[in-house]
Order: sequence, then C-alpha cells, then structure tokens
Amino acid sequence: MKAAPLDFPQWMRARAAHVELVLDDLLPAPDQAPGRLHEAMRYSVLGGGKRVRAALVYAAGQACAGSGNGVAVEAALDRAAAAVELIHAYSLVHDDLPCMDDDTLRRGRPTTHVRFDEATAMLVGDALQPLAFELLADMPIAPALVVQAVQVLARASGSAGMTGGQAIDLDSVGRGLTRDELQTMHLLKTGALLGASVALGGIVAGASSQHRRALDDYAQAIGLAFQVVDDILDVTADTASLGKTAGKDAAADKPTYVSLLGLDEARALAAELRAAARQALAPLGDSGACLAELADFIVLRDR
Amino acid sequence: MKAAPLDFPQWMRARAAHVELVLDDLLPAPDQAPGRLHEAMRYSVLGGGKRVRAALVYAAGQACAGSGNGVAVEAALDRAAAAVELIHAYSLVHDDLPCMDDDTLRRGRPTTHVRFDEATAMLVGDALQPLAFELLADMPIAPALVVQAVQVLARASGSAGMTGGQAIDLDSVGRGLTRDELQTMHLLKTGALLGASVALGGIVAGASSQHRRALDDYAQAIGLAFQVVDDILDVTADTASLGKTAGKDAAADKPTYVSLLGLDEARALAAELRAAARQALAPLGDSGACLAELADFIVLRDR
Repeated sequence: MKAAPLDFPQWMRARAAHVELVLDDLLPAPDQAPGRLHEAMRYSVLGGGKRVRAALVYAAGQACAGSGNGVAVEAALDRAAAAVELIHAYSLVHDDLPCMDDDTLRRGRPTTHVRFDEATAMLVGDALQPLAFELLADMPIAPALVVQAVQVLARASGSAGMTGGQAIDLDSVGRGLTRDELQTMHLLKTGALLGASVALGGIVAGASSQHRRALDDYAQAIGLAFQVVDDILDVTADTASLGKTAGKDAAADKPTYVSLLGLDEARALAAELRAAARQALAPLGDSGACLAELADFIVLRDR
Repeated sequence: MKAAPLDFPQWMRARAAHVELVLDDLLPAPDQAPGRLHEAMRYSVLGGGKRVRAALVYAAGQACAGSGNGVAVEAALDRAAAAVELIHAYSLVHDDLPCMDDDTLRRGRPTTHVRFDEATAMLVGDALQPLAFELLADMPIAPALVVQAVQVLARASGSAGMTGGQAIDLDSVGRGLTRDELQTMHLLKTGALLGASVALGGIVAGASSQHRRALDDYAQAIGLAFQVVDDILDVTADTASLGKTAGKDAAADKPTYVSLLGLDEARALAAELRAAARQALAPLGDSGACLAELADFIVLRDR
C-alpha cells in the first residue's frame, strides 16, 4: 500500500535513510589518507540514531519553502541536515571520552574511543566540526543566507551554546541546581543544536521574519521538552531499550528534571511544552504539520 | 625615534600586540557563564606566542589591498587574524592532552589541562573552533567572500588539513616515513593553517586570481619551511629558549627532517624554501615586502 504524504513515521524513516546516504556520500572515504581517521569518523557518524536534528532541518525547510522547493534548496537542506548531524555526532564522541562521561556503549555499539583509541576519538570530533561548516559553506544558495547559516551553527556549537551547556553540566555534578539553572543548562546543552536545526531549515528555505520567529518559539519549546523527556527516560527505561546506560545521571548525582520536580510534574511539564510547540506553529498553517508531528515524536518517544 | 614603515621587527611586535587586543575583545568574558570555560579559553589563547598566523593574514591582506584599505577590510582582517589564532590555540590545547602528546609546559606556562582539568581543556578546544567560524561569518565584507573564507578555514582545519596531519603523525610514531610521506604530513599538520592564513588575507582584501596564485605558491613554501625549521630547533635549541620541551620528537622516535636528511641537508632545504617563498611573491611587487620578511622570519628564527 502506498503511504499518504502525511504518514509521519514513514516520513521519519525515509528522512533518516536519506540523510544516512547524504552523510555516507559527504564523509571522506576510508581508502583516502588518513584512512584510520576517516574510518573512525564514519564509524562515529553512520549507522544509526533517530536523526531528529536532520528531520527538524527538513521539516522546517518544508514548512517555509512550500511546495515550490527548488533543486538547489533540496541540495542545501541535505548539507544543512548533514552538518547538524555531524556536530551532534562529534559532541557524542567527545562526551563519551574517559575525561568526560567515560561511556563504553552508544547505540548498542562500543564508543569510538573503545573501538579505536582516545587520541583518534578526539581527532574525530576535531575533524567533524570543520566538516560541518564546510558543508554549510558549500550550500548552493545565496551567499548571504550561507553566512547566516554559519553564524547560527557556530553560535549553537560554541560556549554560548552546546559546549557551554557541557561546561555547566560538568560544574553541576554533585551540587544542587535551581530549576532556572537547570533550564539554562539544557537550553544550551541540547536546545541550542535542536534550535539551530530548525533555524537552518528556515534560513535555507528563505523564510520570512514572521516565520522565523515562529520557528524560534517552536524550537525553544521542543529543546526543553527533549531534555525533560530524556531525564524521564533515564529513570523509567532500561539500558537495553535506551541503547545507552540507563540510570546514569541519577547515579552520578547529576541534577535532572525528575530529581528536581518528581516524575509526575516532569511529565506534566513535557506535555505543556508539547502544547506550546504546537501553538507556536500557528503562523505556518498546514505546512507546519510535520514540525507538529516532530514535537509529538520528541515528547512521546520511549527511548 | 619613530620607526620607518618597513621596520619589520617593530611591525611584527605591533601586529602581535594588536591581535592580542582583538582576541581579548572577541573572546567571551570570564564573568559571563560558563565562567570557568571562558577563563580557560582566555588562558589558552591570550598571553603570548609569536602570532605568525595573524601576521600572515595581515601581511597578505596588506599586499593585496594596497594602501587603499578601507575600514571594513581592516575590521575583517582583524576577525580573520583572530580566527586563525583561535584554531591554532585550540590545536595546541588538544595536542597537549595526555591522550596525545601529554605535554605539561607550553610557552613556559602549565598547559591548559594541567592548569584546569582534562575535560575543560577538551571543551576549550571544542568551543574555540566554532568561535573561529563565527568571527569569519561576522566579517563586514561581501557575503560571497565570507563564504570563501569559511571554506578555506574549514578545509585547512579538517581531516584534509591540520587534523588529518595530526592523525598521520599519530600513526607514524615508531615507524619510518619516506621524505614524501613526511612532507605530506607536514603540509597538512602545519602548512594547511599557515596557508589558510595567507589565503584569508588575500580573500578579505579581494585579491585578483593572479595574486591568489602567488599567495598559494608562497604559502606552500613557507608551510614546509616552518616545519623543517621546527625540526632543526628541536635538535639545536634548549628547552628554556624554546618554551617547550626540546628533543621531544627525537626522543619519541618521531620522524623529522633532521632524522631523515641530517642537520646540514635540513638547513639547506630550509634555505631553498625561503628562496622559493620570496620568488613566489614576484607578481605582488613592492607590496609583498612584508610577506618576504615573514618568510625570513620563519626560516631564521631561533625558537
């Protein structure tokens, strides 16, 4: 049976499979020197993940470009989607290192430093990051939009974004955080890159400033929701279904939404953020349907 | 006594002092969260170094823009110069980590992971890299030139550039390299970022394609020369004057130009590359004087 255009689970699967091919194509080949580094880069990026960030790029691009998406916009969305997945992958590789979270398992496979070695894992992250910016710079759209895209991804990745969130997380272990501090940390650590994904889709599609504001509000809500749900799953799911070590944050005495609010109130907050995300999409009308489904996907997922 | 415009040592000192102020201004403030990360970023970047890469940006910009440098070009050169220094600083911080070279001393001070901790040192590198791209994206010049600048810096930093050179270096310890392999490694490891510095100056100044080719040839020669001289100094200088551990490469059984060619032939190669660099500048005429002095500076330095 042929699926209808709004069959969301199928859309997600198709987008994930598509960005996998794009990444496979854009990552340097393992038979090209330095081969071991390239092999480790591919190991770290390919073969899995829900590709939520790539899906956000595509959904936001689709929401703002309408049905008239040109070939150039499609090609640019592919590069932007690959870029955010590269940044996400690099952050996981560095996060898993012994000096950070010291994790040995990721998506059910040995982490990069276990499979290769620590030095290679560090270089993998160091090489994936500029590749992300190179992909943005190669997007076949107006240079002024490319420059905006680079600005957005750079800010989201740096000390005012994801890396800053990591640093706050490091400093928070073993001491209490207020709800405001916890929220700031997560808005940076997880929210910044999710937000950049949404914004990049809008930029590539040439979104109006009204639509960009709608995307920003949406991104803010799903960014927090993502982390609240992560904290809930850390408590309620088991290691096998998560594909990473469950209960780890609680064991490390890291502050979480569940430790701060309790399970019930954390669930209520997730539901509230889901509603806020859908609400924010109103100015986009029907073309925001995919983004709305993505908000549900983020809140209702079980791993 | 007022110095003449071509007093090169004074020009170098003035440029180094200037880019130090630019970096101080553009790095995030330590009283802004995450404070410890920002403090560590500033510790890693500020307070020293010869700033050869920044000088190359300025000298190439000056060579191609002539005396009519506008305010916008000056501001863009500042950002480009800061960007290459940030990439260089991040590479040193990650290089010094225990899983890489495990160095405790850099420019006569404790390395970042010794002064702070390993996790913070890793995040410092991870945050400096996107800041470099953010600075390029904020350059007040034509977006099409900004896009070219991002492409150049991204390629020079990634697995086809500096990080790729590091990976080859890692793999080379304890085994032999041919002269060709050694040259490839150094062209990536050191030459790529030096070359990007020269290219960025040309791009920002709107250099003609003839001048860009001249800059490329020049960059190729000084990139190799820089590493040949580094290898010579590793053998002939002492730790105090180097500000880092002398004899380290030889002790680690790393292939070097000296181990491969002997000291005399390595010195002859450096002299040859210096001549080639000056030769490449011919199309630039008198405005290439500063770049010519920089080639001398790189080859004739004693630390």
